[in-house]
Amino acid sequence: MQYQRIILAARPRGPVRPDVFKLETVDVPALGAGEVLVHNEYLSLDPYMRGRMSDAKSYAAPQPLNETMIGATAGVVVDSRDARFAPGDTVSAMLGWAEMGVAKGDALRKVDTARVPLSAFLGVAGMPGMTAWYGLNEIIRPRPGETVVVSAASGAVGSAVGQLAKRMGCRAVGIAGGPEKCAYVVDTLGFDACVDYKAGNLAEDLKRAVPDGIDGLFENVGGTVFDTALARMNAFGRVALCGLISGYSGAQIPIHNLRSVLLNRLTMRGFIVTEHMDLWPRGLAELEELVASGALRYRETVAQGLAAAPEAFIGLLEGRNFGKQLVRLTG
Amino acid sequence: MQYQRIILAARPRGPVRPDVFKLETVDVPALGAGEVLVHNEYLSLDPYMRGRMSDAKSYAAPQPLNETMIGATAGVVVDSRDARFAPGDTVSAMLGWAEMGVAKGDALRKVDTARVPLSAFLGVAGMPGMTAWYGLNEIIRPRPGETVVVSAASGAVGSAVGQLAKRMGCRAVGIAGGPEKCAYVVDTLGFDACVDYKAGNLAEDLKRAVPDGIDGLFENVGGTVFDTALARMNAFGRVALCGLISGYSGAQIPIHNLRSVLLNRLTMRGFIVTEHMDLWPRGLAELEELVASGALRYRETVAQGLAAAPEAFIGLLEGRNFGKQLVRLTG
Repeated sequence: MQYQRIILAARPRGPVRPDVFKLETVDVPALGAGEVLVHNEYLSLDPYMRGRMSDAKSYAAPQPLNETMIGATAGVVVDSRDARFAPGDTVSAMLGWAEMGVAKGDALRKVDTARVPLSAFLGVAGMPGMTAWYGLNEIIRPRPGETVVVSAASGAVGSAVGQLAKRMGCRAVGIAGGPEKCAYVVDTLGFDACVDYKAGNLAEDLKRAVPDGIDGLFENVGGTVFDTALARMNAFGRVALCGLISGYSGAQIPIHNLRSVLLNRLTMRGFIVTEHMDLWPRGLAELEELVASGALRYRETVAQGLAAAPEAFIGLLEGRNFGKQLVRLTG
Repeated sequence: MQYQRIILAARPRGPVRPDVFKLETVDVPALGAGEVLVHNEYLSLDPYMRGRMSDAKSYAAPQPLNETMIGATAGVVVDSRDARFAPGDTVSAMLGWAEMGVAKGDALRKVDTARVPLSAFLGVAGMPGMTAWYGLNEIIRPRPGETVVVSAASGAVGSAVGQLAKRMGCRAVGIAGGPEKCAYVVDTLGFDACVDYKAGNLAEDLKRAVPDGIDGLFENVGGTVFDTALARMNAFGRVALCGLISGYSGAQIPIHNLRSVLLNRLTMRGFIVTEHMDLWPRGLAELEELVASGALRYRETVAQGLAAAPEAFIGLLEGRNFGKQLVRLTG
């Protein structure tokens, strides 16, 4: 039996181009003791992958060349040499950009699709949801009545941040690109306001959207968007630094308003949610329940077929996706 | 009876020039109930004063025009209508750029000069010392064996930071301007190393001085010095943002390495030590004991006479002082 996978064939310099990826067909290996074979239904595309493609010093080892691109997947067990897993079980895992994959049972998370769709375990009920949960609960710790701002607000992480902040009694304000995304953030997700950073009047528009200033900033973007939000922070505000996607293509975008950290006695903390696995069981249980009850809404952009993954990933880096970017790997 | 004082006559635009200050002679007022008249022996000059001279939004109200410039002072009580104070008592206070001043007793701190010189209560045993103590103990919280870097290392705050870090079992590395200051930081204060940022090779020199990277950064300067240190931070490092003196004259110096906060999961916190008065009794007691025993060393640059204060202050902003900048107000 064979399956398709995508490997990283070359490291990008500057913007990612499709030719750094290579699609190839490989044999399904024989299962070793304790191993499980999974047929992936969905691949998650996430901004962190851009960092791994570089071999610059970072918190994680770089994606090796000529190996399957890293990535979270959700799928169905087709064969198992681990007694805890049987064919037909639905699981999430890190099997990468591939139609199938083999992992030890300990690296799989069995998921129950009775109330939550399989794809959601790659989004709001998975790593992106936990990212929102962690940044809010462990760094921003908002009090009722405070204002929380999140950039990339219509994305997988941002959409959860605002909805969770609303549930905590906060004013939730998003920053997103374009009127369609902003309308979705307010009308469907229930944020109090959303600022379109592409409208050309970010500083004034943000100022109007946060009449009482910003107490908690969940930053996914960096660059000008971050700088503009820093200028509106209140005393003793908290900044959860989750991503700097605006600089992922190598462009160094300097920050001018770091003075706000001093003047407003801000606390800014960068974090990587996978370093806090102890909190995942609690956080995921909360998120799954909110998704199952319909209290936490989300949107997906689904590319069809593994071969579509490179273009979908480039679109994600450029903000062309709308909500959680997935690749559907089955027909 | 009359005394001299210096008022702020105009707000500086860009670098501070002497003509924004005005020296004038005023009458000593009659004491009201509960008030104390102090003859100031020393005026402390500190970088925060530059911020107060501006009327831009900040954490503190701006210095009013045509009133005595704000400032910490140490002196001797000459008259008192507060039973807790008697003529001859030595006190520290915030009586400003003035030879004499009147304050309520609650605004005075009685100091014991038997073991600690009066001037030290404006430096290492006063606000600058507490600034070092707070940033280290409450933000950086270094563990033995970690590396702590402090900029403006020969200054009133920086010199205390490194010495306290050494006492906590850390490698202490300073950044200072010029070989004379660096030699003092290592030879007299006992830092493990000091990097001369004026030598033209800051990035390489700092890298060599912190072979195990930086775990705690006590930042007084901002700009290129800060950016360079950010690039050498270790995972889970802490940054106490105390000052950004490099930008106090209005020049906006952008930061390029904010990405380090994310990649290294740093925690950065801005602070104002006067917002944490609850910790002062404990911190000052520790600092006074260390000064009295000779364990904590310090250096002063003393300008003579109130009229010398403006030039001394400008020198402080430009790094021309060496150690704590004071003005001696008595003959």
